[in-house]
Amino acid sequence: MNFELSEGIAVLERTPQIVRSILDGLPSSWINADEGPDTWSPYVIIGHLIQGERTDWIERARIILVQGADRRFTPFDRFAQFRESEGKTLRDLLDEFASLRAANLDTLRDWRITEAQLELTGEHPAFGSVTLRQLLATWVAHDLGHIVQISRVMARQYRDAIGPWRAYLSVMGT
Amino acid sequence: MNFELSEGIAVLERTPQIVRSILDGLPSSWINADEGPDTWSPYVIIGHLIQGERTDWIERARIILVQGADRRFTPFDRFAQFRESEGKTLRDLLDEFASLRAANLDTLRDWRITEAQLELTGEHPAFGSVTLRQLLATWVAHDLGHIVQISRVMARQYRDAIGPWRAYLSVMGT
Repeated sequence: MNFELSEGIAVLERTPQIVRSILDGLPSSWINADEGPDTWSPYVIIGHLIQGERTDWIERARIILVQGADRRFTPFDRFAQFRESEGKTLRDLLDEFASLRAANLDTLRDWRITEAQLELTGEHPAFGSVTLRQLLATWVAHDLGHIVQISRVMARQYRDAIGPWRAYLSVMGT
Repeated sequence: MNFELSEGIAVLERTPQIVRSILDGLPSSWINADEGPDTWSPYVIIGHLIQGERTDWIERARIILVQGADRRFTPFDRFAQFRESEGKTLRDLLDEFASLRAANLDTLRDWRITEAQLELTGEHPAFGSVTLRQLLATWVAHDLGHIVQISRVMARQYRDAIGPWRAYLSVMGT
């Protein structure tokens, strides 16, 4: 698929409800499950999504749209959630994510971005020139990637519990 | 995690709302997207989940609980949805899945399964003796695996659209 703004927003606006429907009210054994050392639990992942709303996607889109002299993006801190989520319940995080996402989508819609603007560029710290279209498509794919991750982390808690069915469930990995 | 009935049910009862929150009202470009020949779209996957409710999980659990002379499971038809979903909208399928799942969880709860019953066995057509505990854990993991699949199929529609970010998003595959 090519990136179309309306199709992308259709996913972005659903993500808070999707993660809420997966996680809200679940026993903590699921919320805090991970895939081993240095892997993320659903709780950590929601904190990471919040950081993206606070510092990443909309800020980078704004840098591109403004087209100032310096269009370099601030590097994104992939570990800020370990500090920022401290003391918060999962419900706190789900609410915070939903409210930040709603505000960011209001901003995005208010910009009334044109097809021409989607081709404007900014400078990614690692791989240089990227278009607004690529940035917004990545926002959507990044959401979906973390929904994949949350569901996969949970599924793999039953890697042993499913016994011989493991051979049939590719989600368990090798 | 070991399989505990209450933790498993906590996931099983969420799945209809999870897939509804991902898919209901999305543009058909997302609903019908797949990963290439002989791969499944979100629409096909919901039909497959319905078949599991109709013919697989609860029926097999019943065979185990009854402990009759013949405890062999009927092989599951992984392709029935291509016939059974015909002419139905996605909304029809989401409603049908939710209603079948709710009824099956009523049945499961009414059985008041004991720890001892979780160790009873049936005969899987491919790999022989399996416990009720393994069957129920697989029901949960199977749900989560298909939530992974739906989200992954959708993410990969933007494999090209995200440009250089592809290097950062493992969900895109190699």
